[in-house]
Amino acid sequence: MATRSAATQDDLRRHNLARLLRRLHEGGAASRSDLVAFTGLNRSTVGVLVSELADVGLVYEGAGAAGQVGRPSLMVQPSASSAVVVAFDLRVERTVAALVGLGGDVLVHKEQRHKRSSYTPETALRNIVSLVGSMMGKAPSPATWVGVGIGVPGIVDHVDGRVRLAPNLGWVDVPLGDMVREGLTSAFGFAPAVAVNNDADLGAIAEHARGVGKHSRNLIYVSGEVGIGGGVIIDGRPMTGAGGYGGEVGHMVVNPQGAMCRCGAKGCWETEIGRDAILAAAGLGGDQMEVADVIAAASGGNPKAQAAIDEAGEWLGIGLANLVNLFNPEVIVLGGHLRLLFPLVSGTVYRRIHYALPAVREQVRVEVPSLSGDSTLLGAAETAFEALLSDPIDVLARAHHAAAS
Amino acid sequence: MATRSAATQDDLRRHNLARLLRRLHEGGAASRSDLVAFTGLNRSTVGVLVSELADVGLVYEGAGAAGQVGRPSLMVQPSASSAVVVAFDLRVERTVAALVGLGGDVLVHKEQRHKRSSYTPETALRNIVSLVGSMMGKAPSPATWVGVGIGVPGIVDHVDGRVRLAPNLGWVDVPLGDMVREGLTSAFGFAPAVAVNNDADLGAIAEHARGVGKHSRNLIYVSGEVGIGGGVIIDGRPMTGAGGYGGEVGHMVVNPQGAMCRCGAKGCWETEIGRDAILAAAGLGGDQMEVADVIAAASGGNPKAQAAIDEAGEWLGIGLANLVNLFNPEVIVLGGHLRLLFPLVSGTVYRRIHYALPAVREQVRVEVPSLSGDSTLLGAAETAFEALLSDPIDVLARAHHAAAS
Repeated sequence: MATRSAATQDDLRRHNLARLLRRLHEGGAASRSDLVAFTGLNRSTVGVLVSELADVGLVYEGAGAAGQVGRPSLMVQPSASSAVVVAFDLRVERTVAALVGLGGDVLVHKEQRHKRSSYTPETALRNIVSLVGSMMGKAPSPATWVGVGIGVPGIVDHVDGRVRLAPNLGWVDVPLGDMVREGLTSAFGFAPAVAVNNDADLGAIAEHARGVGKHSRNLIYVSGEVGIGGGVIIDGRPMTGAGGYGGEVGHMVVNPQGAMCRCGAKGCWETEIGRDAILAAAGLGGDQMEVADVIAAASGGNPKAQAAIDEAGEWLGIGLANLVNLFNPEVIVLGGHLRLLFPLVSGTVYRRIHYALPAVREQVRVEVPSLSGDSTLLGAAETAFEALLSDPIDVLARAHHAAAS
Repeated sequence: MATRSAATQDDLRRHNLARLLRRLHEGGAASRSDLVAFTGLNRSTVGVLVSELADVGLVYEGAGAAGQVGRPSLMVQPSASSAVVVAFDLRVERTVAALVGLGGDVLVHKEQRHKRSSYTPETALRNIVSLVGSMMGKAPSPATWVGVGIGVPGIVDHVDGRVRLAPNLGWVDVPLGDMVREGLTSAFGFAPAVAVNNDADLGAIAEHARGVGKHSRNLIYVSGEVGIGGGVIIDGRPMTGAGGYGGEVGHMVVNPQGAMCRCGAKGCWETEIGRDAILAAAGLGGDQMEVADVIAAASGGNPKAQAAIDEAGEWLGIGLANLVNLFNPEVIVLGGHLRLLFPLVSGTVYRRIHYALPAVREQVRVEVPSLSGDSTLLGAAETAFEALLSDPIDVLARAHHAAAS
């Protein structure tokens, strides 16, 4: 509290506008009575705030959903065609992009494959600018473009969008946020808010806002790719740590007698449950192989593949028990190849989690993502909406101004 | 933001009063100009707020500290004799208590030794009630008694003050918060806010508010007692987790080939750096021995004691590197016997922390507590002041009413 910015009359109005819009964006349509109950403000104040949001087109009032008892009441709804963002999930071998409207609707969804070896930051930038152009060309009129969100498989300074290290892209110290802002400005004469974040952090944000952790306050997202990434939500907010780099769960040492990790330590969690570890244990090396191939081999009766899965299950459980003891989460969400692995080893995983202290583990559940592989992409959209949701009127005024200039 | 309570006019006033009082309590005396700069409010609003706090006696204005350049300006100061709390640190073999005034001054400090075997919850309650009586007898007049804070070496539900498990006290599922509220009410006809928390969580709160982590936003306190406890501050606020039980760093598995822990898992951090582990490795068992004895033996040339210290240093570093990767803290504070151990093994510890990812470790420093063994006690005082600091006028009005009835 002590360092939060001052609360003046004007802050109060902005704060309440922001709260209303965020509620509608995250929770969908609501009656005025719902909003009165949600905010604790009186009916006339809510009316004034709704009118102010409606005047700039961010919300509208219309008949509620069918199936309600009695006469359908007027519902306040976020207008998906009022404000849009373009979201990106930059992966090792493909770029996934979406045009997303206020309220979270995915309006356009695109994938482009690329060669890992030639995917430099400059190539990525060209793809991003070109995809923004084609997506904004399909944006509903009169939508205001309020942000771009980008997920990167690496360590990112979320304040300025600098990619410190993305080992599997081979990127070191890339000022991606600045590059994208400049690229968009030179292509379109304007750049909205640009947010760049770690992919697993975005997975956590999306699964918490709209996915399997929707009603939780404390969530950990663990993504299994070549490496093992993590994103942590504490008391409803993303945990960043001192520099924005918290949640590096893949480099938690769980087996000091284990294999050497590319980070230089021995026995990181990643060296036990990362893709390469599972492939190697199964004797299925090679660039084209995936954890899905190990699972297929095991179900076809390959004992070495089955042993690799069993072993990965033990280590998955040991690491998750640590996270439970440390963070006391309500939900752990397993993405990437862990999503495929978990159903096969859930008994082992829960047996290991049972070693966490009883009070700490009693609320936890382990889940797979409910956003069908798009957790990172949708998390990127959420971060792109953040500026608008924090100060709707101001951001919209500046965006209109920029568009008009 | 979405679930925070509504912001009405009255909320705004309370919020600003609370911010001012918290600033003065945590940061000490400030000029009106400092408070204008801190709050961003205008001078007349700050004047009204200061007057309101002065009217109820919580603050006063007086000459500033000597040594300033120029004419001393009037400083707004928290009044240590306006509101007091009684704080307790319940340890395995002694009870430490303090009477603490608003602003954090320790007015009275007491220690009572007790036998571990006979220290039941009922005995603890009798001690607490009797110490409150003798301390409040020494409270300055007209101080209002606004809270009691208690630290317990165990797993505590901080919402209702129930001790779920305090293994070294032998307490299981003890409703300590309710017991203390009832005990105080029957002894004094009134009980103020009673806060019960885990000892390491309180260490983290105190070192963050007033100690070596004063200007940090992300801090981890690791306490070495019989067990290894932890408290975590994330972005300026204590991390609680789903049930208030986060931060159980002692049961992070770091050595699955290691010794069996009393929690049932194998190779917990506690089985490598806990007191008993270090004593056993040094060949110095026995109830009366402490880590200090191992250190003395090593400095006297005992090679087994030296080897135990070296080994504990390696494991301390491995565990801290994990915490750095997971939480990206600015400060790690090592309390209890780790405070004695750290200066002897700091080279090893930093070498191990160097295995954490570069971006994640670049801001971290490892410190020993600066509150001379009283971190838990002073953290308990902070939690006891929390109700007053959140809503000063309301809490004071209710306390006066209770005293008058």
